[in-house]
Amino acid sequence: MLIDAKELYEKLDDYMEKEVTIQGWIRNHRKQKEFGFIDFNDGTCFQNIQIVYDNKLNCFEEVQKLHVGCAIEVIGKVVASPAKGQEFEISMEKIQLLGDCPEDYPIQPKRHSREFLREQAYLRPRTNLFNAVFRLRSVAAMAIHEYFQSHNYVYVHTPLITTADCEGSDQMFKITTLDLNHLPMVDGKVDMSRDLFGKQAYITGTGQLHGEAFAMAYKKIYTFGPTFRTENSNTKTHANEFWMIEPEIAFCDLNGLMDIEEEMLKFVVSYVLKHCKTEIQFFDSFVEKGLKEKLEKLVSSKFVRISHHDVVDILKKADVSFEFTPDYSEDIAKEHERYITEYFDGPVFITDWPKDIKAWYMKTNEDGKTVAAVDLEVPGAGELMGGSQREEDYDKLISRAREMGVDESTVDWFCNLRRYGGCYHSGFGMGFERLLIYLTGVENIRDVIPFPRTPGNCEY
Amino acid sequence: MLIDAKELYEKLDDYMEKEVTIQGWIRNHRKQKEFGFIDFNDGTCFQNIQIVYDNKLNCFEEVQKLHVGCAIEVIGKVVASPAKGQEFEISMEKIQLLGDCPEDYPIQPKRHSREFLREQAYLRPRTNLFNAVFRLRSVAAMAIHEYFQSHNYVYVHTPLITTADCEGSDQMFKITTLDLNHLPMVDGKVDMSRDLFGKQAYITGTGQLHGEAFAMAYKKIYTFGPTFRTENSNTKTHANEFWMIEPEIAFCDLNGLMDIEEEMLKFVVSYVLKHCKTEIQFFDSFVEKGLKEKLEKLVSSKFVRISHHDVVDILKKADVSFEFTPDYSEDIAKEHERYITEYFDGPVFITDWPKDIKAWYMKTNEDGKTVAAVDLEVPGAGELMGGSQREEDYDKLISRAREMGVDESTVDWFCNLRRYGGCYHSGFGMGFERLLIYLTGVENIRDVIPFPRTPGNCEY
Repeated sequence: MLIDAKELYEKLDDYMEKEVTIQGWIRNHRKQKEFGFIDFNDGTCFQNIQIVYDNKLNCFEEVQKLHVGCAIEVIGKVVASPAKGQEFEISMEKIQLLGDCPEDYPIQPKRHSREFLREQAYLRPRTNLFNAVFRLRSVAAMAIHEYFQSHNYVYVHTPLITTADCEGSDQMFKITTLDLNHLPMVDGKVDMSRDLFGKQAYITGTGQLHGEAFAMAYKKIYTFGPTFRTENSNTKTHANEFWMIEPEIAFCDLNGLMDIEEEMLKFVVSYVLKHCKTEIQFFDSFVEKGLKEKLEKLVSSKFVRISHHDVVDILKKADVSFEFTPDYSEDIAKEHERYITEYFDGPVFITDWPKDIKAWYMKTNEDGKTVAAVDLEVPGAGELMGGSQREEDYDKLISRAREMGVDESTVDWFCNLRRYGGCYHSGFGMGFERLLIYLTGVENIRDVIPFPRTPGNCEY
Repeated sequence: MLIDAKELYEKLDDYMEKEVTIQGWIRNHRKQKEFGFIDFNDGTCFQNIQIVYDNKLNCFEEVQKLHVGCAIEVIGKVVASPAKGQEFEISMEKIQLLGDCPEDYPIQPKRHSREFLREQAYLRPRTNLFNAVFRLRSVAAMAIHEYFQSHNYVYVHTPLITTADCEGSDQMFKITTLDLNHLPMVDGKVDMSRDLFGKQAYITGTGQLHGEAFAMAYKKIYTFGPTFRTENSNTKTHANEFWMIEPEIAFCDLNGLMDIEEEMLKFVVSYVLKHCKTEIQFFDSFVEKGLKEKLEKLVSSKFVRISHHDVVDILKKADVSFEFTPDYSEDIAKEHERYITEYFDGPVFITDWPKDIKAWYMKTNEDGKTVAAVDLEVPGAGELMGGSQREEDYDKLISRAREMGVDESTVDWFCNLRRYGGCYHSGFGMGFERLLIYLTGVENIRDVIPFPRTPGNCEY
């Protein structure tokens, strides 16, 4: 009977002493004179299956020639394993080579550096580390859908191609169908009327504006899709293409928003702890010691809520010499984030930020100086989510747009939402990769994206 | 107690004769001398709630001035309704205006043409039709995730930005961070080495190539994300941005693939029938008569499997004068698709297509003339999915790439998958919007995408 490794692990009792057929790949092959051991993996679960064979097999010599990486089909009997740390193994009866693999196959059963594996992005999910990372990525994505769908949010596919000046058009990739080597020029400028859309279009850095339009129809919506930034920045946490989750909720203020963020994050972490037990165990052992405990602690903790002003107070009183001096009118630095999450020993919502360092569409507080924005700081990962109550007053919104130099003509429809039954509403954004870095302990964003795009790097 | 309309409908017995608070929008407002009726909708479900008030209310006169579109909060008692067709209504006790709306609000309680509403894309989800369409879109998206996740597929976020010549680079949008008005030129050509990635990059038309790499690690994977085509085509079924689902399965041949396609589609249709009862009923009454029956029939039907050759045989024998003459070496036309699905009175898998009209990566059959490709034709929607067994032979694949003019240097890694433990494998693509057209009866792709992008149209 043809079965997946996952099923064999889950229903071992049913298959014990039975003959099964499995299809997958050789991860390792240890050969002895009269025996052989194949570490087999078919990708359906993290664990390998040990296949044993001996020289009673007709094809013993050919089998011994099989390289790491080969695709094989094996018929054999599931038997109790005498080896330590595994309940069962498969005693090979028949084997068929389905796809050969040369000896110079780049993924060998030894420790490869993450830098080397980044260069082999199309092969690296075959390694333990990346297999675990990208399976967890899939499970975490499902957790997010489950949370929002079970709470009656509508999933909106906001457009990637846009002409709206969402977050500053200088941060967006331009797209075109024109021949760059022969652009149609008029008066020294490109005649964009001849492009497919008749004007300059971009791929977007946020779905928020479009999300708000749908929140005004469905009350609760979320987006979950790819997002682009042109930032020419080579850090561990920046990529030019990444995935974002952007919920938007009508009739919701800043406190309501924090309730949602906290509940959602706890749901996702619990879901991953439950559905990725083996992977979390692996990360805990080999990537970040204490990871499991960190995640379990988050689920049972109560997140602190404190204003930016009060955070700066704490930082100023701190007996630490920071590189950057904390300031009531400025953003807080990474070192400050770290101090604050350690100070409270858990996740911290920082609210009411100086308006000049935040986006134009955030609601100005009564003090006229701060906005009803909130960042969630998480121990070990820094800022995980950023959100705000949105400015619902049409005149105030327009005036902020002008102050911040936003091209009004491209967002007039967005501003109109305030005229047509606008109401108090809030939303947040969560970078999916930042969540994954937190969940896996893997530190570099390049290692949680299947095929990462960073400045100068767009292979595959 | 503050509640959503959805909860009120689902737990009506618990709330009957109780006081509740609701927040939402006025869809319609009928005023009489001593009474008033507000059709209220908060977006959490398709149905409106009727709110009644009379002149015993202190603010009777102000309430009567409220326009369609206003955001309101109402406190009132849930009571049995004397009106036909509704079980309950809310007797208003207090009302608060949360967001005003002028009289010239474009969405009035009358029939608007779909063309007009396309121009109001940011407001149209507030209408019955589009509210139903985009809620169903969200539910159908969840159905797809549920199907694949519950069958242990790994969800892979394949990159949108790519340098690989997946489906012909002339069909892809170029992206750039360079200033188009001042491009750096060298020898009459743009110096792309100065662009962010150091070369020309595109936004992609498929995730399949990258998906195959992950199928060789996980056995079963799927993608679900936005996709782009530059096609300058103004038809009901073409858009420049749309969403695709692309599963890829290792150790799976063409028959196995058809099993998966059939099971998946039936699952999604059943899921939508179950979770969008009201919306399906609405589409059945106002968009496509017989829709519900069509969908229920699909779930219980057995899909026909027939080769392209045999389909052409049937078409040639048909007593119909087709505009296009059916030909063994050519694609079949829309009129042929229609005839065949009517002939079999149900969905039809057409297999083994002439190789020259199909993609370069499809497996050549033993006859050397056809490829192991399959299109699923569905009554009333035409081609819903297209898939194939992939060419697993390295030499044959390279030779097909050359014949079809693919830039080999950009897909060498993809071809290498055949060298490193490649195995027989298959995959398919389903355009999400085509599925939605089938599920809703709405005929134009512009009406199932929140903010559609078509040639000359990129508003919002």
